Amino acid sequence: MLQQLNKEVLLKRREALEQVIKRRFIYQPAFSLYGGVAGLYDYGPVGCAIKTNIEQYWREHFIIEEDLFEISATILTPEAVLKASGHVDRFTDLLVCDVKLGTGYRADKIVTETLENRIAKEGDKLAADVKARYLAVIKDVDTFKEDKMKEIIAELQIKAPETGNDLTDPTPFNLMLPTIIGPSTKLPAYLRPETAQGMFLNFARLLEQNGGRVPFGAAQIGLGFRNEIAPRGGLLRCREFQMAEIEYFVDPSEKSTFKKFNKYINLEIPLLSRQLQADAKLHQPYKMGDAVKEGIINNETLAYFICRTYLYLVEIGINPINIRFRQHQADEMAHYSSDCWDAEIEMSSGWVECVGLADRSAYDLNAHSTATGQKLQAARKFKVPQPRQVLQIILDKQKIGKELKKDGMSLIKYVEALSDDEKQDLFEYYQNNEEKIFNIDGKDLTLNRQLVKFEKKTMNVMEEKFIPHVIEPAFGIGRILQAIIEHSFNQRDDPQKTFFKFSPRVAPVKCSILSVVQNEEFDVVIQELASSLKKLGISCKTDNAGVALGKKYARTDEIGIPFAITVDKETLTTQSITLREIETTKQVRVPIVDVPRLILELSSGLILWTDVLTKYPLFAAKEEDA
Amino acid sequence: MLQQLNKEVLLKRREALEQVIKRRFIYQPAFSLYGGVAGLYDYGPVGCAIKTNIEQYWREHFIIEEDLFEISATILTPEAVLKASGHVDRFTDLLVCDVKLGTGYRADKIVTETLENRIAKEGDKLAADVKARYLAVIKDVDTFKEDKMKEIIAELQIKAPETGNDLTDPTPFNLMLPTIIGPSTKLPAYLRPETAQGMFLNFARLLEQNGGRVPFGAAQIGLGFRNEIAPRGGLLRCREFQMAEIEYFVDPSEKSTFKKFNKYINLEIPLLSRQLQADAKLHQPYKMGDAVKEGIINNETLAYFICRTYLYLVEIGINPINIRFRQHQADEMAHYSSDCWDAEIEMSSGWVECVGLADRSAYDLNAHSTATGQKLQAARKFKVPQPRQVLQIILDKQKIGKELKKDGMSLIKYVEALSDDEKQDLFEYYQNNEEKIFNIDGKDLTLNRQLVKFEKKTMNVMEEKFIPHVIEPAFGIGRILQAIIEHSFNQRDDPQKTFFKFSPRVAPVKCSILSVVQNEEFDVVIQELASSLKKLGISCKTDNAGVALGKKYARTDEIGIPFAITVDKETLTTQSITLREIETTKQVRVPIVDVPRLILELSSGLILWTDVLTKYPLFAAKEEDA
Repeated sequence: MLQQLNKEVLLKRREALEQVIKRRFIYQPAFSLYGGVAGLYDYGPVGCAIKTNIEQYWREHFIIEEDLFEISATILTPEAVLKASGHVDRFTDLLVCDVKLGTGYRADKIVTETLENRIAKEGDKLAADVKARYLAVIKDVDTFKEDKMKEIIAELQIKAPETGNDLTDPTPFNLMLPTIIGPSTKLPAYLRPETAQGMFLNFARLLEQNGGRVPFGAAQIGLGFRNEIAPRGGLLRCREFQMAEIEYFVDPSEKSTFKKFNKYINLEIPLLSRQLQADAKLHQPYKMGDAVKEGIINNETLAYFICRTYLYLVEIGINPINIRFRQHQADEMAHYSSDCWDAEIEMSSGWVECVGLADRSAYDLNAHSTATGQKLQAARKFKVPQPRQVLQIILDKQKIGKELKKDGMSLIKYVEALSDDEKQDLFEYYQNNEEKIFNIDGKDLTLNRQLVKFEKKTMNVMEEKFIPHVIEPAFGIGRILQAIIEHSFNQRDDPQKTFFKFSPRVAPVKCSILSVVQNEEFDVVIQELASSLKKLGISCKTDNAGVALGKKYARTDEIGIPFAITVDKETLTTQSITLREIETTKQVRVPIVDVPRLILELSSGLILWTDVLTKYPLFAAKEEDA
Repeated sequence: MLQQLNKEVLLKRREALEQVIKRRFIYQPAFSLYGGVAGLYDYGPVGCAIKTNIEQYWREHFIIEEDLFEISATILTPEAVLKASGHVDRFTDLLVCDVKLGTGYRADKIVTETLENRIAKEGDKLAADVKARYLAVIKDVDTFKEDKMKEIIAELQIKAPETGNDLTDPTPFNLMLPTIIGPSTKLPAYLRPETAQGMFLNFARLLEQNGGRVPFGAAQIGLGFRNEIAPRGGLLRCREFQMAEIEYFVDPSEKSTFKKFNKYINLEIPLLSRQLQADAKLHQPYKMGDAVKEGIINNETLAYFICRTYLYLVEIGINPINIRFRQHQADEMAHYSSDCWDAEIEMSSGWVECVGLADRSAYDLNAHSTATGQKLQAARKFKVPQPRQVLQIILDKQKIGKELKKDGMSLIKYVEALSDDEKQDLFEYYQNNEEKIFNIDGKDLTLNRQLVKFEKKTMNVMEEKFIPHVIEPAFGIGRILQAIIEHSFNQRDDPQKTFFKFSPRVAPVKCSILSVVQNEEFDVVIQELASSLKKLGISCKTDNAGVALGKKYARTDEIGIPFAITVDKETLTTQSITLREIETTKQVRVPIVDVPRLILELSSGLILWTDVLTKYPLFAAKEEDA
């Protein structure tokens, strides 16, 4: 019964869905009382519970399954860290402002919207070559640098949309939110733009926890911040957003093979490869084994996480037909990245990037090593000695000691501990330089090349050092939640009767306990049932109000409670209740004594509704009154 | 076997514990690679898992049990909100700086430390009256305002401790971390100092979800930030810290009774009441019913949450003997608060406030109402009409319309919707004032008293409006985690052999799967067992290394894994393993087929180890080799 939920189908339902989101406070703009702040949203009880559930399942699916090290690092991040990572210099969007009012716009957005509007408005009146020019600009505008952007804005006469005023020259605006830590140190800092850096900085500690061995993975669930110039699009583009990220550290010589990938070589996943994009074709399903063999996906480690991501998304209720993995174009990736794929989900606003999977090579560990002078490396250990061309450094320790006194020892220790790659770099550096300055524990120490000799030798070694590569799957929880909500939303024959078909483990509340009519005797049973469910940690909602049962069902359906228990007259005589499933509205009669374990097993996915149907007698409900 | 873990016992173990915390990366200072930032800590895998588990149990114990509305509001908070809440003006500590170096100190801390040092150093040489003076200052210094603090610093010759330099005059330093949202609006904002405001701002939405009825509670788990002047004390005083807060909204006329409190009237909890403190006595156990009856605790609602808090702390592994609830002194409470208690836990650093339980009256809802002109009220609905003295406002609508045109309608609507209390306030205001300015939708509208008449009447009403009061239990997760770690830490006869006696639901990893000796056949069984546990969402750690079993046990003990499965020769013939419990180190022989469900039930607290002992045969292990 899998439905193709394309953009049009989802758009049609959108208005009704928006009403439910607002009426049932699934999420809503934050600070509405104070006029609101763009790009900030509060999750209400329903949205918050779904968020908690998909995070918890992410833990089971990824952290427990792969034995990842989950950590919780801080949001506050000193500037030096983000300088090293490249964010201070490069985490920017081009900003243009209305010259008179100062209103800020994202340059690429305003160019795109202006040109799209002209195309829509002028229609056939627009000359073919002008239209072609517009479309070409729209396609590439997000890659333009300052100069190019300025040129285009002048050439195409782009103005501030509300006023028609001129725009200031495009300037890079850093998207990190700044703050200052402490009254006396006044340490400049930012709110982290991603959770990743915390995992890179803890690499050495985690490597130690793993007994010095790679591969291993770190994981973190937490908030990221992005000072968007002009956020729109609800949960899809927020200034504060929940992420779940994995940094999987691998030996670069081993990342092409991943043992557990064998399970998935026949799994078919829709891919939109670089080639398909170049050929202007649609995504198409590939067997994952073939995708790696044919070189479409760079390595098995990356492919394995694509498979796991796909399975996760399907398991939490994303329609599989509306998932595709899009490969980044060569000019879209960071220079250090060897391959990068986005899990995109089709929603009412089109295909939306919800998970990014990147091979980040050794970029991040290298960056922090360079900035701090601390080594972030692992070692390949051999069972039998291996012959290796080894570059040895021979230091004139006596002279160094004389020159640098106590600091000489630190310098000697530091240089001798360099990795093979770093020794090679140093060797090349001294080909053209007389001296090199090392920053060790905050001191600049100079080492003249006269004090260093290099020797190349073939040696039998028991280990060699290397900087691990990183495969990074990064999940945007808010976007995934929006996708689940859109894909799960349904209307019955009466379109006012809406319901969410959530997977039970994602559902915000697991079951409702209702009475057929308001009645004190029923209330006793309801409270006892609620209490026995709560003891098992199962969330439930009770309703013994004096309204029609149909209305009670409608209320629980509207927030996607998968199972409804109803207490009726028969309950008092036979100690049984009826249990109703949300999508089919079918009901069975179940002894009260069975209920807690039944709901527990249903809501944790241990059994399915179809299992319940075979075990208990169907209950022919009277037509629900409205 | 309950041990009195007083400060001395805990201090003795502290050094060994610190080593484990570091070696196993339970938590560690953040940004160590970059020299570190005081007051920021990263949780490693063990700490992070414990944190997740105590949060999850908090959800079950409070949110599910009380049907609270959990929300997730933003950390970024515009200045206007925190101006209204009082934080911009009053969330400060007094800062003094070294006049030459600029180093900042918290005035109260530096005074205390200086005087304590003098007392310790000079001992008996110190004149009795001087010593008495010092002790009096130490007792009250945290309540001193700027002038008084300045006076004391001058009088007692307090200097910068490292340099002996003079100190600047004390000035209030705001403890919120500032930021700026957006490039063009440049909205001044702060990182929230508590999660509470997000719940107050969403009060109206949540009231609607509850069908307009109070009482109901909101809950939020998330980060708070505090720009401490000079943070020390590890997890006990951080600049970024996880909180779990409840705002329980009640009808002030009903808060003295709370139906579910009846369950706990005989529960004994150690209280340190205002009176006991005044009498310089120790805390003592009270039956909670008596504590309310005797007026020690202000009302049943507050008392109920004290009970639930106590039970929560005990359930997650805090030693009950080391918990007390300390009542705030009258001058320690906010002016609007009618009663306030802290759950304090005894740790190696003494008694530490870990949970605050405050009756905040209507302060917060009032503050945001006043600031925004939006009503944050609930209504008492009556089944039969009730006679009430009602103050009616009669407006001269014609003249208002003439004077204010369109705005007149907004003003009329606004004034007519005032609550009974607000009408009373307005009546009193006009006794002494000619006109009042209302800020409605951002416009200042003036209403002259000539246009308003008041009439008092007895009327039969079906409802009356009121501003709910708030009972606020606020939990510091980091502090509680520190307490659990300290209370659970143990050393065996060999003090190098340490273990944590965590309650299974708090334990970071639920079980380990070990082999007696390294062996490929054993590894197959280990992997199968791990896979079947993971399917149930149970975290486990496998170890098939070639080291002695005793060493493997030591590794899993050190991070508090409660259950260890061992695969041995007999496993291959009888399809059974041994299961060992961490505290007793007793082992039983269990069929493999029983294992997954057994571990699931043990780790969720459905069954206890003693149940396992009665069901399965004891396994006489050979002495563990070290």
